Amino acid sequence: MSLTYTESKEISYYMCDRHQKLTLPMLVNLLLDVSEKQSESLGRDEAFVKARGLSWIILHYEFIIERMPKVKEVVQIETYATEYNKLFTYREFSVKDADSNELIKVKTTFALMDTEKRKMARITEDIVAPYKAQFSKRIRRNQKPVEPDLTDYNEKTYAVRYFDIDGNNHVNNSHYINWLMDSLTSEFLSLHDVKHGVITFDKEVNEHQTVISRSSFRKEEDLFTDHSIMTNGATHCSASFEWIKA
Amino acid sequence: MSLTYTESKEISYYMCDRHQKLTLPMLVNLLLDVSEKQSESLGRDEAFVKARGLSWIILHYEFIIERMPKVKEVVQIETYATEYNKLFTYREFSVKDADSNELIKVKTTFALMDTEKRKMARITEDIVAPYKAQFSKRIRRNQKPVEPDLTDYNEKTYAVRYFDIDGNNHVNNSHYINWLMDSLTSEFLSLHDVKHGVITFDKEVNEHQTVISRSSFRKEEDLFTDHSIMTNGATHCSASFEWIKA
Repeated sequence: MSLTYTESKEISYYMCDRHQKLTLPMLVNLLLDVSEKQSESLGRDEAFVKARGLSWIILHYEFIIERMPKVKEVVQIETYATEYNKLFTYREFSVKDADSNELIKVKTTFALMDTEKRKMARITEDIVAPYKAQFSKRIRRNQKPVEPDLTDYNEKTYAVRYFDIDGNNHVNNSHYINWLMDSLTSEFLSLHDVKHGVITFDKEVNEHQTVISRSSFRKEEDLFTDHSIMTNGATHCSASFEWIKA
Repeated sequence: MSLTYTESKEISYYMCDRHQKLTLPMLVNLLLDVSEKQSESLGRDEAFVKARGLSWIILHYEFIIERMPKVKEVVQIETYATEYNKLFTYREFSVKDADSNELIKVKTTFALMDTEKRKMARITEDIVAPYKAQFSKRIRRNQKPVEPDLTDYNEKTYAVRYFDIDGNNHVNNSHYINWLMDSLTSEFLSLHDVKHGVITFDKEVNEHQTVISRSSFRKEEDLFTDHSIMTNGATHCSASFEWIKA
C-alpha cells in the first residue's frame, strides 16, 4: 500500500486572486511543497536526489476541481505515489476542506532528470522504494491537451524573469501555469473558474528566453480553452481547461 | 507598549530563488501574512477594515538584511505597530533564526485608503487602538530612494498580469519588488545579495497597464542600485538597494 502523507495548509492572502480564491499556480506550489515534505520524511528529499545528479520533473498534471479554497481557509493536502515503472512515477493529491470534503483532486506524472545531461533518467528502487508505490510495467496514457485553434487565438509574450528560476535551475512549474492562464482576458478569468484541466510539459524553457503563450476557445463546445507555450516554433507546454461560471 | 505578534514560518521551495534563498518579493508576502494574522487576532482583520470602505496600503519599506533564510529553514517573524498619527502607522518586522539571531529587520509605513475614492483616509482610534501603538503627532521622514541615473540605465517593461491583482483590487506589493529587481541582469542578481533597501510607493499601477522598470548603478559608490517603476512619465514606485557579494 502506498504511504499517504498529509499536511494542513492555511490559505494566505498572497496565494489568492482578486476574488480571494487560491490561484492555480499557487495550488501547484502548495502541492509540491507537501510532496517534498513526504520525501523528506522518508529520507528522499530533494538533496538526496540532487546528490545523485538527478532531479524530479513533472510531465503531466490533471486537475479535477470542485472548488478552490478561499483565503484563510484551512485545508488538508494528502499525497501518495500510486505506481511507478522504469520511466515514470504517478502521484496523486487530494485537497480537503475542514469537513473532509474533497475540493480538488490532482493526478501527476513525474520523471527523473539527469541534471547534467538534461535528459530523463531511469527510476531506481533505491529512490522510490520508501514510498511503497506499486511497480507496474504499464505506462499510462495521460489525457492530452487539445492544440489551440490557430485561426482564432489570443497571444501574449513573456520574458523569463530572474525569480522564475528555481533551485533546480529551471523555470518553476507555477510560472508556466501563470503564462498559460494569463493569455486569456482578465474579463473571462474574473468570471470563470477552472473545473478540469490537463497540462503537459514537453521541453524546458531556459533563462533569457521569451515565450509565446497562445490560447483559443473551442468553437463546438462551451467553456473549453486550449493553450500552448512556444518558443521559435517549439512547444514547451500544452494545456486544456474546462471552465464554469464563477 | 505595542503588542508584538510572532509566528513561525518554514521557508518552502517555491519561496526561494535558484540559490535556495528566500526572495525579497516572497519575504514581503510572508511579512504581510503575519501582520494580517495580528490584525485578525485583535479583531481588526482585512474584512473589518474593508467593511468600513477602507484598505491598508504600504507607502514605504526599509529592509536591513543580515542574511536571507534558506529553504526549509524555520524562522520566527515578529511584528508590532510602533507609532501612529492622523495619516500613517509605522510597523516593524523582525525575522529571527532558530537561535534568535535577527536575520532581517523591516520598517514600514502604512496608510489607510478609501477604497471607493482611491484616496488616503484619516486613521481613527477605532481601527488602531487594539494594537496599542503610541500616538505621536510627529510624521517621520523616511529615507528616500535615489533616482536612477538617466544617462546609463537598464530598462525592462512588464504588463500587469491577471494574477498580479490581489483581493484589494490592486497590484500586490510583491510584484513591484519583482519588477524592480528583475530589471538588473541575472548575472548581477545571481552573485549579489541585498544588504539594505528602501522602497516607496507613490501611485497605484492598474490592470491593463504596462510599466517600465528602470535601474542604474551608482557611479561614485560601489554596489548601490537605484530604481523606478514608471508609466507614461509618472513614477509609481522607487527604490534604492545596497548589495554585497553573495
